Amino acid sequence: MNRREMLKIGSAGSLAVALPAIAIATTEPQPAHAAVPLWEVFELTLNGPSTGNPFADVQFAATFSLGHRTVAVDGFYDGAGAYKLRFMPDTPGEWGYTTTSNAADLTGRTGRFTCIAALAGAHGPVQPRNTHHFAYADGTPFFPFGTTCYAWVHQSEDLQQQTLQSLRSAPFNKIRMCVFPKHYEYNHNEPPLYPFERNAAGQHDFTRPNPAYFAHIEQRIADLRVLGIEADLILFHPYDRWGYATMPSEADDRYLRYVLARMSAYRNIWWSLANEFDLMKAKSVQDFDRFFKIVEQHDPANHLRSVHYSRVMYDYSHPWVTHGCLQTANFDAAAGWLAAWRKPIMFDEVQYEGNLNRRWGNLSGEEMARRFWLGVIAGCYVTHGETYLDPDQPLDENTTPTIWWSHGGKLRGTSPDRIAFLRKLVEDTAATAGKDARRTGFEAQPTAYYLNASTVDATGTGTQQILYFMDFHQPIYYEFPLPAGKFTAELIDPWEMKISALSGTFEGTTKLKLSGRPFSAVRFRRV
Amino acid sequence: MNRREMLKIGSAGSLAVALPAIAIATTEPQPAHAAVPLWEVFELTLNGPSTGNPFADVQFAATFSLGHRTVAVDGFYDGAGAYKLRFMPDTPGEWGYTTTSNAADLTGRTGRFTCIAALAGAHGPVQPRNTHHFAYADGTPFFPFGTTCYAWVHQSEDLQQQTLQSLRSAPFNKIRMCVFPKHYEYNHNEPPLYPFERNAAGQHDFTRPNPAYFAHIEQRIADLRVLGIEADLILFHPYDRWGYATMPSEADDRYLRYVLARMSAYRNIWWSLANEFDLMKAKSVQDFDRFFKIVEQHDPANHLRSVHYSRVMYDYSHPWVTHGCLQTANFDAAAGWLAAWRKPIMFDEVQYEGNLNRRWGNLSGEEMARRFWLGVIAGCYVTHGETYLDPDQPLDENTTPTIWWSHGGKLRGTSPDRIAFLRKLVEDTAATAGKDARRTGFEAQPTAYYLNASTVDATGTGTQQILYFMDFHQPIYYEFPLPAGKFTAELIDPWEMKISALSGTFEGTTKLKLSGRPFSAVRFRRV
Repeated sequence: MNRREMLKIGSAGSLAVALPAIAIATTEPQPAHAAVPLWEVFELTLNGPSTGNPFADVQFAATFSLGHRTVAVDGFYDGAGAYKLRFMPDTPGEWGYTTTSNAADLTGRTGRFTCIAALAGAHGPVQPRNTHHFAYADGTPFFPFGTTCYAWVHQSEDLQQQTLQSLRSAPFNKIRMCVFPKHYEYNHNEPPLYPFERNAAGQHDFTRPNPAYFAHIEQRIADLRVLGIEADLILFHPYDRWGYATMPSEADDRYLRYVLARMSAYRNIWWSLANEFDLMKAKSVQDFDRFFKIVEQHDPANHLRSVHYSRVMYDYSHPWVTHGCLQTANFDAAAGWLAAWRKPIMFDEVQYEGNLNRRWGNLSGEEMARRFWLGVIAGCYVTHGETYLDPDQPLDENTTPTIWWSHGGKLRGTSPDRIAFLRKLVEDTAATAGKDARRTGFEAQPTAYYLNASTVDATGTGTQQILYFMDFHQPIYYEFPLPAGKFTAELIDPWEMKISALSGTFEGTTKLKLSGRPFSAVRFRRV
Repeated sequence: MNRREMLKIGSAGSLAVALPAIAIATTEPQPAHAAVPLWEVFELTLNGPSTGNPFADVQFAATFSLGHRTVAVDGFYDGAGAYKLRFMPDTPGEWGYTTTSNAADLTGRTGRFTCIAALAGAHGPVQPRNTHHFAYADGTPFFPFGTTCYAWVHQSEDLQQQTLQSLRSAPFNKIRMCVFPKHYEYNHNEPPLYPFERNAAGQHDFTRPNPAYFAHIEQRIADLRVLGIEADLILFHPYDRWGYATMPSEADDRYLRYVLARMSAYRNIWWSLANEFDLMKAKSVQDFDRFFKIVEQHDPANHLRSVHYSRVMYDYSHPWVTHGCLQTANFDAAAGWLAAWRKPIMFDEVQYEGNLNRRWGNLSGEEMARRFWLGVIAGCYVTHGETYLDPDQPLDENTTPTIWWSHGGKLRGTSPDRIAFLRKLVEDTAATAGKDARRTGFEAQPTAYYLNASTVDATGTGTQQILYFMDFHQPIYYEFPLPAGKFTAELIDPWEMKISALSGTFEGTTKLKLSGRPFSAVRFRRV
């Protein structure tokens, strides 16, 4: 169900269990009892004041309750006199709600719905799990293999549909994307919509968000949700010619509250406070500390929260940060950061596969694939990006070609297939671990002398899998120190995406003859 | 002329201007006047006491003089009653000498020789030049492209000859080699000779060096000199089962004095105080400080001096160290070290091309070649090593196969040809610089945004050449910021070893279409 359909149901005053979003329009009388599957969106629309500045003047919220538990939820003004509440129930049962407002039409409204079992394929929001890893709310492990399309929702509808089509067959289950439009090299087009009301002179009224702008982004988030892709939503960024990077503090905070009220109920959101926060010269680290606290306070779903930097790293040890979001390919330092922060680490920008006139945008496909392997072997996760220019395109940075990293479109690179192959290897740790959450995902097992190794179990007991990646080393044979027990062994060619099982089982120090080619891998699995 | 021939002339009492070493045997009367080319070896042999322990009991030295200048030179006992003085004249003219000794036969002897012009191809010892680079004494730039054969002089004569044959066509002009034999994985054979007298029980008398042992090494150094290869002579190392790594301090110092007296006159020696000094648990950093001072004091030729570490870096800022000798591939840190030490830096151990069961010994040829490029682009120099096991060899580390890194023999890898190609590119900076010493060699020119670039000129004016290496980046076009003036441009494929000249000349910011393949390079040369 898309956003337009959902609004239609609301305005008709009808009541429907419409999936994936549940829209309930109440005027008078109170709506009948609805059933909302776990982790879907319950939406209530009430009519209220449309004079003055409803965004600024009208407070609207609700308390949702299940037994003795209560959850505070902010409502928002959606234009044309419509006030909305969205809520993602996280527990099955009989939920009730009561609204509060400074507007008589909007206060004291009550209602109920039943949260029923989750739909097939819905696992809830992603949370940190087992210190360095992630899982959905239902316990299903989540291994992020993300990509980057910063401004894809601000391109033409055709291009957005092409991007969604590309994502359908791509190996990515997370996407970094900006709420605000982007101004940068190769990014000179105006967005179809603007986030705030804008007068003829192009001046923005930051007190008046444009509901259609946010509804459009929500539609894209819902599209991603259908594809099983997490939206790593970037709330601020420095690449701006409209003034969104330099709003006054009150406008920043109001904007955040508006986005949180509108979007928190989408289970597939991660909050990325900024891209390259340290390049936003109008903001300080303290501003971002405050933003984190606003997000933490006003997101009833407690989505993942982090922030991305350019040169000066944010302090990821803060308790309000759920995971590291790094711009570096310094995988050697990962062990220290993991130990210091005790959180999962995303290497969210390791440069991009492509052929641009910039060092961040011209990695070979081999190097991009290698960086994914190095990240996994370091016990972390890596995000893809792609920056291919058509070689026949004129050599001019002031044009706006279609480049995946910002605009979406089609993938041209050689790394995605290899990333898909690696993702399957990593997901296999969950398949073999069964329900034991501690045995999913790879933990780095650094030793002074051997090549990097990782095992599935950080506790040192019951290791189920061990993955070696040889990088640019090419031993013709190698001694692998296996933990107690019997293991099968497979030789892996990460580039050719081939797995060759060796016959028999192996115990103790195991000397294997290898290919003698660089960039090979070896996997051991417990019998 | 080899060592055996030289000794023959000495023992016959004849006098000959024999090249490359000049051997003069004096009994009575005084030898006639000899002519010694610049930077060759003047050698004087006197008969003296052979009873007791002549190594310990007899002091023997000389003062060489040219006009008002005097140079102190230690003599040494060469066995069988023969005492020798070796001296490498560094200035043409009429040199005189006077011996001093506590033995009557050896003291007060005087003589003269004429230092004449250098032989063709002889440029003198290598010294630091222009802060981060090297040159021979005659001003000819020297760009070290070294290799590593730690124990090659302790193998069979056939194998040593094969090594020399391999070096004849290899791209290497420096070789890291140990005075003492080596005990390690794949190094279990006994050396043909021992450096000290040894009784039937295998006990060494560290007060009695074995002259034949040192004469053999000198022969190999002379062989290398003919090939134009610098002998980076490693004086101590930890890989020992004979006791040479754990001698008492007095024995260490006496050994150093003996080597210095015997070998300093060979112009192609660099003193490497140790391989992995920090793994020599019987020695302290202070011991190595003392060794440096002994070498500095007793080497009349003032050869290059450094020391190699494993984990704990020696303090290369000490004034007695002439250059850095690093075991790392952290080229990113080079700029900091160059600025701190203001000395040339050799990345003398960056791991080895090969296929061993050890991460230090199984780099791909591509990665070894890449590390040479990264080192050059960082304004430093890199040393090669090769560790290929025959794939059909039994997988057993207790055998003694022939592996280039330690034994010499034949080169099997793919990197040497590419290293030869890069060496030519670097040497070309001298060809175009003419006599301007400041314009040879590449200095790193790090900029925040562009790929690594290097130019031939550290002063920022008169840049003659600029070399870009794209590493794993693959831009389809790139903007190169050229300094003032006109330049030619060439696209370089470092692996295929191809140089494609672009037509025309280029000025200012120059946008070039590139191959779009990784590991490419671009060279600009001033018109």
